[in-house]
Amino acid sequence: MKALIIDNASGTPVMVPGTHDKPEPKPDELLVKVEATALNRADLLQKSGNYPVPEGASPILGLEMAGIVEEAGSEAHHFKAGNHVIGLLPGGGYAEYCVIRDDHAMAKPPSLSFEEAAAIPEVFLTAFQGLFWLGELFEDETVLIHAGASGVGSAAIQLAAQTSGTTIFTTAGTEAKLELCESLGADLAINYKEKDFADIIEDGNASSSVDVILDFVGAPYWHQNIRLLAMDGRLVHLGLLGGVQTDNLDLGKILKKRLTIRGSTLRNRTDEYKALLTKEFSDHFLENFEDGTLRPVIDSMYEWEEAEEAHQRMKHNENAGKIVLTGM
Amino acid sequence: MKALIIDNASGTPVMVPGTHDKPEPKPDELLVKVEATALNRADLLQKSGNYPVPEGASPILGLEMAGIVEEAGSEAHHFKAGNHVIGLLPGGGYAEYCVIRDDHAMAKPPSLSFEEAAAIPEVFLTAFQGLFWLGELFEDETVLIHAGASGVGSAAIQLAAQTSGTTIFTTAGTEAKLELCESLGADLAINYKEKDFADIIEDGNASSSVDVILDFVGAPYWHQNIRLLAMDGRLVHLGLLGGVQTDNLDLGKILKKRLTIRGSTLRNRTDEYKALLTKEFSDHFLENFEDGTLRPVIDSMYEWEEAEEAHQRMKHNENAGKIVLTGM
Repeated sequence: MKALIIDNASGTPVMVPGTHDKPEPKPDELLVKVEATALNRADLLQKSGNYPVPEGASPILGLEMAGIVEEAGSEAHHFKAGNHVIGLLPGGGYAEYCVIRDDHAMAKPPSLSFEEAAAIPEVFLTAFQGLFWLGELFEDETVLIHAGASGVGSAAIQLAAQTSGTTIFTTAGTEAKLELCESLGADLAINYKEKDFADIIEDGNASSSVDVILDFVGAPYWHQNIRLLAMDGRLVHLGLLGGVQTDNLDLGKILKKRLTIRGSTLRNRTDEYKALLTKEFSDHFLENFEDGTLRPVIDSMYEWEEAEEAHQRMKHNENAGKIVLTGM
Repeated sequence: MKALIIDNASGTPVMVPGTHDKPEPKPDELLVKVEATALNRADLLQKSGNYPVPEGASPILGLEMAGIVEEAGSEAHHFKAGNHVIGLLPGGGYAEYCVIRDDHAMAKPPSLSFEEAAAIPEVFLTAFQGLFWLGELFEDETVLIHAGASGVGSAAIQLAAQTSGTTIFTTAGTEAKLELCESLGADLAINYKEKDFADIIEDGNASSSVDVILDFVGAPYWHQNIRLLAMDGRLVHLGLLGGVQTDNLDLGKILKKRLTIRGSTLRNRTDEYKALLTKEFSDHFLENFEDGTLRPVIDSMYEWEEAEEAHQRMKHNENAGKIVLTGM
């Protein structure tokens, strides 16, 4: 079958079109004809050898896809041949065919194209996990979502906006991104390059007023995050793009405000965890893609042969929203 | 009625016998004849003016008691006059009578004396909250309980030992305390004054092997705690007796090990929270005091007129277990 492979001939790894054996579905898996896949930052790390491939996962890149079930294993009961599905993959999405556990697949929202739907799984499941499972966001709470124009950020803003009574603050670095965040449901989008986001939030509110913070930046925001958190506040780290090391940690604030600090990733979770996450997200939110109250934010689409160009766009942080590959 | 009052005449506050108006129970409260109360570290802080009295709480010290219901309010349905009860108080235990919300009271275990039973509420409810609600301890996990010979520590060891398959590490500072911890169910009690507890735990185990840590020490243990925590580990801070400020916080470890760090206190929780905590603890563990699988660890008992002496004992960290006042 067609597949994107990593070419290291020049010393710098690049994605090139090639071929690979077609995968065989296990009894609890579906074989899916991939119609579209989407890029994740982990793809760049894996390409350069800096992200170990989980045991048993495909060496082919690609952590999510939208496609058509070609064959269902004997123990796969949720979907059958011909169904249009989307889902998280442990790898293998950058190819003509992939396999996916039956309980990791979701029905593709019918009103979306395969290209649009391929942009849903990673960002929406990660945002759902972060906001609701780890952040335990309740109705009528205040949430701060950093990097609101990123894939996960844009999904998180929309999911928070679907939760009754939430007040949503977000940060982004350009006017276009700020506008995107507000169009997705943010009550206030703050340009972190121009202003101190913590000052802005405190100016219009009681201090220590944020119940849940989703952060991908890490160390540079640590002190402002802790300062903003309300009593019983929760800080969820899903990434540390700005740095990992911070000083002057004041445990007194954690104790007095009864804070919860959590770090997490999605990829290295168990299959059972991902199946439950997929089910809960589907049950609560999949239909929202039909009425348009949720939508994947697409930055750009590339033919699969142009995958390296797509990688360069992500590498240089030029994208706002997801980058999709199609035409495999 | 008789009550202990704070005498500031000498410039140094001391507890002295005195009198105070008898409290009036609200419809959802019980009026209780106090048979025994127990000391908490917060009492010392409150005596010296360093612990604000929660709104509406009695200015009299005393956060727990065992006694006999004298009168039940019209909306108090769990207990009636003549019942022997124990429970958490927002204050008021250092007196002949106190009031307690009906849903904050528990039946006194019949086989225990009032003096023994008065030592149960604060430490066992705090340990229960820390281990199960905040630490989410599951069966077959490994737990590290710091200050194992303290009131909360000794209760936590016993509660963890009642949880199937747990491995229990603990720290303490004298041979007598180490023996106490092991008699309560600790698998290994480590003298933190003689050895690095993290080295000892790692020596006999896989590194990063502790699922839940209950800590009262704070900053001095921070790096060792983070190092010991396993994947999905939980660090619960219930006190910071050793210091609040730490450096070189590595958020990367929090993310990679998917850690949860929590701080909490019990006293400033809502009445509803305390009622639910009381109910869950009672349902799960109160009967264990009957068969001796749980027992309050009593350091010493004092007549109420000797309260100041009892305070001095706690202030100088001379106690192992609870200090009880009786004879009001």
